[in-house]
Amino acid sequence: MVVLGSTGSIGKQALEVVGWFPDRFKLVGLATNKNIELLEEQVAAHGVPFAAVADLAAAREFGWRSRGSGVICLPGPVGMKELASLPDADLILVAVSGIAGLVPTLEAISSGKTVALANKETLVAGGSLVMSAAESRGVQVIPVDSEHSAIHQCLMRDEKLEVRGGTSHIPVARLIITGSGGPFHGMTGDQLRDVTPEQALRHPTWQMGAKITIDSATLMNKGLEVIEARWLFDVDYPDIEVLIHPQSIVHGLVAYQDGAVIAQLGRPDMRVPIQYALMFPERIANRLEPLDLAGAAQLTFAKPDLETFHCLALAIEAGKAGGTMPAVLNAANEVAVMAFLQGKIPFLSIAEVVEGTMSRHDAIPSPGLDEILNADGWARQVAEHMLSSRW
Amino acid sequence: MVVLGSTGSIGKQALEVVGWFPDRFKLVGLATNKNIELLEEQVAAHGVPFAAVADLAAAREFGWRSRGSGVICLPGPVGMKELASLPDADLILVAVSGIAGLVPTLEAISSGKTVALANKETLVAGGSLVMSAAESRGVQVIPVDSEHSAIHQCLMRDEKLEVRGGTSHIPVARLIITGSGGPFHGMTGDQLRDVTPEQALRHPTWQMGAKITIDSATLMNKGLEVIEARWLFDVDYPDIEVLIHPQSIVHGLVAYQDGAVIAQLGRPDMRVPIQYALMFPERIANRLEPLDLAGAAQLTFAKPDLETFHCLALAIEAGKAGGTMPAVLNAANEVAVMAFLQGKIPFLSIAEVVEGTMSRHDAIPSPGLDEILNADGWARQVAEHMLSSRW
Repeated sequence: MVVLGSTGSIGKQALEVVGWFPDRFKLVGLATNKNIELLEEQVAAHGVPFAAVADLAAAREFGWRSRGSGVICLPGPVGMKELASLPDADLILVAVSGIAGLVPTLEAISSGKTVALANKETLVAGGSLVMSAAESRGVQVIPVDSEHSAIHQCLMRDEKLEVRGGTSHIPVARLIITGSGGPFHGMTGDQLRDVTPEQALRHPTWQMGAKITIDSATLMNKGLEVIEARWLFDVDYPDIEVLIHPQSIVHGLVAYQDGAVIAQLGRPDMRVPIQYALMFPERIANRLEPLDLAGAAQLTFAKPDLETFHCLALAIEAGKAGGTMPAVLNAANEVAVMAFLQGKIPFLSIAEVVEGTMSRHDAIPSPGLDEILNADGWARQVAEHMLSSRW
Repeated sequence: MVVLGSTGSIGKQALEVVGWFPDRFKLVGLATNKNIELLEEQVAAHGVPFAAVADLAAAREFGWRSRGSGVICLPGPVGMKELASLPDADLILVAVSGIAGLVPTLEAISSGKTVALANKETLVAGGSLVMSAAESRGVQVIPVDSEHSAIHQCLMRDEKLEVRGGTSHIPVARLIITGSGGPFHGMTGDQLRDVTPEQALRHPTWQMGAKITIDSATLMNKGLEVIEARWLFDVDYPDIEVLIHPQSIVHGLVAYQDGAVIAQLGRPDMRVPIQYALMFPERIANRLEPLDLAGAAQLTFAKPDLETFHCLALAIEAGKAGGTMPAVLNAANEVAVMAFLQGKIPFLSIAEVVEGTMSRHDAIPSPGLDEILNADGWARQVAEHMLSSRW
């Protein structure tokens, strides 16, 4: 197994899960952007033979520090790509952040590796490319995100039904992605005008990185997840629903055409979907506390407010426009979120930057890798320019 | 397809479902105890060639009324058994009430028919007998009860995992059966002392027959369902949990050892699990309104109060004692519920009659059909005698 992004939030939790089952997993490669202190610890703790460091200066430093330890250091983005196709690896966990996940995911797929995917941008920007590559190579892409993991767990039965029933189509009416609604659920546009990054970073139920926590507060995160779901499960946008569920106990649901709904529930703990993705199709007992529904608060569900949380509407719009538009949405959002975190723009302007950038873009249908990466770069420039001229 | 008990609540709804899919089902036999007016209508509406009437006087009357119509009338309990093994039938829905379901279910199994089982007593009294017969004959027993249907729907995936993972055991930690708690959820023993049959019959979420509605109010219904689950899914009693869920939206859950929980949800409408059982493993769109979680009330869960609702504790005790004890529990309960409905005993005495009857019984382990039916008859006599001497 290889973990790309081992020093991030998901990567660290994945290594914890791997540590629970030493007989079951062997780590053959780890990659970080530039957190070489933690990488060094992880490499030593797990006896990992290959390590990649994307940042070249950090890679040089790491190579120097780890000399004589036997670990082979692969520098730069190329190193990450090499790890993704390492002959010894069967399973690649892609847990890097940002568009940097796309190339190694495609590399892992073309090398025939099973991919456990924790990187949103890969499917948001390159969904069509990635899933058609996975299909033609016969490779499984297993989601790590709690919502998509939930839907994957609910749907698994149907692959079987398909085989037994001889039907070619799963009779799913709707996929339902839940979201806590973030710290601002229920607030009006007026109330959101002056919220600070500190307030936006106080997520009620999940502990996550800063970027994704802001995306949860704007509901962009749900929007990106809708686009991911469209590709992971091959459903159309009208059949994907978002429900606000502040308690984060029900992570995803599948509604069937006969009126039955199957849901996956669990405590808000990423180690559950991480273990599911790494062990699929098996499940093994772990050290996590079981869900206690009787001790849980009531579970509530509400429709999202697409007017106030305009980012969700923009994401669905980008998804429907297709082609390079989701890549543009994602890149503009990344720039805008960074500007918000740095105190440069107000919370509600995140959506304005995204919308402004999208409105300047003519989507290229069925884009290749270069066109996706170009659209990403273009959108970042346009968004940055908008920021410097307007705020 | 044959429907045993076509004039009862489940039978009527099953015929409605069958009516939605005229190309898919062909009814070849219907059976009633003695509601021959409705049976006559049903036979005519669906063009059914065979009809059984268990009550002999009613059977004679039906035979006379339907002469010349071409329908063949099979009188008495033997007629029900004949329908269960009708050569033209692949699928037998057992929706008769009471212990009368046991013999035709065994007959259907030994004839190699798929059984859709809506009769609780069959598994409560004869679980071991029925499931071992089904296994040795390679016959599927698909539950119709909403709770067991829910668990069946949640577990389906695992049969596949078993095949793929090559493991012999499903890594299930717990099966969770939900129940609304009935009209008296949250009340104390003192408050229950003087409740009337009218109050007990006011079920908050489900429309059902009188006997099962009282069983819902005492929680005996959940107890019987725990025993059924033990046999249907081959799990031990400590791994079956009951949760009170007053909204009746989540019907059953499966907790896995890795911390994930899969649940089945739906509006409280028996036509969903009926269609599931009749069509399994397929699902086809129907006319039912989809579940609207955003429009639903909050969902809450609580542990049952086993002290106040002593029937549930008694059922689990009977299940653990095994052998003929669950048959005795069930028979004594039927007598006691009837006495309560007739105003002969107070609500809380239902449990007293059941407990008193159980305490007089030495369970016979691994009973055959005759021993089960004898225990049933014995328990009715003992319970009746207790009623006439004590109240």
